[in-house]
Amino acid sequence: MEMANEEPKTVPQQITMKGGDGPLSYAKNSSLQKGVVDATKGMIIHAIANNLDMDKFCSQSSSQTFRIADFGCSIGPNTIFSMQNIIQALEQKHHENNHGNSPTILEFQLFFNDHSTNDFNTLFKSIPPSWPYFVAGVPGSFYRRLFPKSSIHIGHSSNALQWLSKVPQEVVDCKSPAYNDGSIYCRGIEKEVTKAYIAQFEKDMESFLNGRGEELVNGGLMVILMGGVPNGIPLSHTAIGKFYDLFGSCLLDLTNKGLVNEEKVKSFNLPLYFPSAKEVKVLIERNGRFSIESMNEITEQLKRGQPLPSAQNCISHVRAGFEGLIKDHFGTEIVDEFFACYAKKHLQSGFVFGDNGVDNTLMFMILKRI
Amino acid sequence: MEMANEEPKTVPQQITMKGGDGPLSYAKNSSLQKGVVDATKGMIIHAIANNLDMDKFCSQSSSQTFRIADFGCSIGPNTIFSMQNIIQALEQKHHENNHGNSPTILEFQLFFNDHSTNDFNTLFKSIPPSWPYFVAGVPGSFYRRLFPKSSIHIGHSSNALQWLSKVPQEVVDCKSPAYNDGSIYCRGIEKEVTKAYIAQFEKDMESFLNGRGEELVNGGLMVILMGGVPNGIPLSHTAIGKFYDLFGSCLLDLTNKGLVNEEKVKSFNLPLYFPSAKEVKVLIERNGRFSIESMNEITEQLKRGQPLPSAQNCISHVRAGFEGLIKDHFGTEIVDEFFACYAKKHLQSGFVFGDNGVDNTLMFMILKRI
Repeated sequence: MEMANEEPKTVPQQITMKGGDGPLSYAKNSSLQKGVVDATKGMIIHAIANNLDMDKFCSQSSSQTFRIADFGCSIGPNTIFSMQNIIQALEQKHHENNHGNSPTILEFQLFFNDHSTNDFNTLFKSIPPSWPYFVAGVPGSFYRRLFPKSSIHIGHSSNALQWLSKVPQEVVDCKSPAYNDGSIYCRGIEKEVTKAYIAQFEKDMESFLNGRGEELVNGGLMVILMGGVPNGIPLSHTAIGKFYDLFGSCLLDLTNKGLVNEEKVKSFNLPLYFPSAKEVKVLIERNGRFSIESMNEITEQLKRGQPLPSAQNCISHVRAGFEGLIKDHFGTEIVDEFFACYAKKHLQSGFVFGDNGVDNTLMFMILKRI
Repeated sequence: MEMANEEPKTVPQQITMKGGDGPLSYAKNSSLQKGVVDATKGMIIHAIANNLDMDKFCSQSSSQTFRIADFGCSIGPNTIFSMQNIIQALEQKHHENNHGNSPTILEFQLFFNDHSTNDFNTLFKSIPPSWPYFVAGVPGSFYRRLFPKSSIHIGHSSNALQWLSKVPQEVVDCKSPAYNDGSIYCRGIEKEVTKAYIAQFEKDMESFLNGRGEELVNGGLMVILMGGVPNGIPLSHTAIGKFYDLFGSCLLDLTNKGLVNEEKVKSFNLPLYFPSAKEVKVLIERNGRFSIESMNEITEQLKRGQPLPSAQNCISHVRAGFEGLIKDHFGTEIVDEFFACYAKKHLQSGFVFGDNGVDNTLMFMILKRI
């Protein structure tokens, strides 16, 4: 049996969104992701209709359990919507397969996975009381095994796989040629820095695919949505890159004010890597446990019809997503100051997500366990 | 599909122990229950060795998943110890069955169930990082369905089934002949009050057995430990009854001081019923989904060799167990005052658990799904 729930030897980054349901929580500040969930609903229904061989799973008994897992679920409500979309797709297909006259009742068991530091209490409270599904929360990094062999029919992961299991040590080591001097993220320009980030990303993707490869039943599907960059474009030229530049400049400001230690800033980098679709494709093919049923870059579709969030929404959103990271590295006492600085800069610069730099891509993939 | 996670129409009591891991938490104040866990370890190993037909479950494949669920797990650490004991028993039996040369690797998936208001965050943090098992938390009342059909091999429930899904409405209704005048629990003396509590207990036990009956595989075992009374002895004559008398008298004191509203006290009763082994036996047989493989009353074994906890331990223990109930019914502002009053009375009266009244029984049962 492989190690389940065992933490890696080097210090990992347990990235979790801000818990609770207060005004600054992720639960109240995840409307940008909600747009993504809505935009992909039709694609999920289409993918399940075309790529899933339900009869293969359906036993001869009068009931059939489908097990669905969301990897990196955070605290809701988007994971709830995603699960609902997948169930709707499965029920629709089941209904059509049987012309509305099926002898088999479908039961759904839903597993919500995120780090053990995730606020599962808030997640559990946000599950609709009327939901006729069996639910469970699964604590642990999805870069390890989380479920028994061949026990999951549909896996889902949204906006999670660009988070690495840890920051590559070299990029925060002043003595290394891969030291990421003056930046808090992988800009995609400095060769050695990028190489270190890519190595970590490849290792993490391999762990993810190996884990899910064991856990998914044969013919099971993985629905993956993840952030990326257009092929050949460095992250620093994209909208997300511009945002990290703004974000990072606040740390510089606080250092200049003497509010944070310069050494602490030097040892801070974001455990994030935004790959191109080409890079991801190579890794999945090299791993060999899944076939790529479809792979789309959906930026343009997403932007159509999505209202731009207000500046204040964006600012709350950034805090919900990054407060944990700042707190863990720089301490609780600096959090308010940091986000006040960020809010000021965001407003002063008239920063608008997506209006600065090249559009990032959002990759939507359907993988089948072979 | 039956309703999963759906709350009943009348107001239920979601009894959960005090969360977190502070000095007043359940996690730090459950040593009394730990004694019980230790005392039953040998009995669990014996029960699994003698009552479980493991070969029946073992498929021809190279790995076999055992699914174990703890119903009413609270926040640890006792649920962790209980799970460990069950796994040890299963591994021991597997090893002996195969003379140490088994081709089949056992994988364990552990489900921790309690109300959605339970502090799962604390529970998840207390799971040993080195545990090589797959874990999940399952929020919801165990008086409803929680798992897919035939998906659990071993069910466990410790110190939970004496908690009812709700207080019977009649006992807090001044106009009812079953009104429980002047007491906060089912003393077992007033006929109409007792009848109302018994009706609720019977309904709840039936729901529990029906739910587990669907969820357990054929031949699966339920290991149940629950508080009770010796046959024919009313609860008010037992140690637990004496404790509730002391506990209830604090409410009277606070009413006399004008700190709590008399009406609030009149509408307060504990959602607890301690049955005799005979009563439980009748209900299980009437339900018909499980055979009783063994049923023991283990008070005396338990007391042997168990050091008496200090008065201060007892007081902290009471608070960890009952703070939620007091807070929900009387409001946060009265909690400290109430437990200060309780502590004072406990110390003044020289109250010692188990030294007042008749010994309560602790029923240890092994049921098999037939």
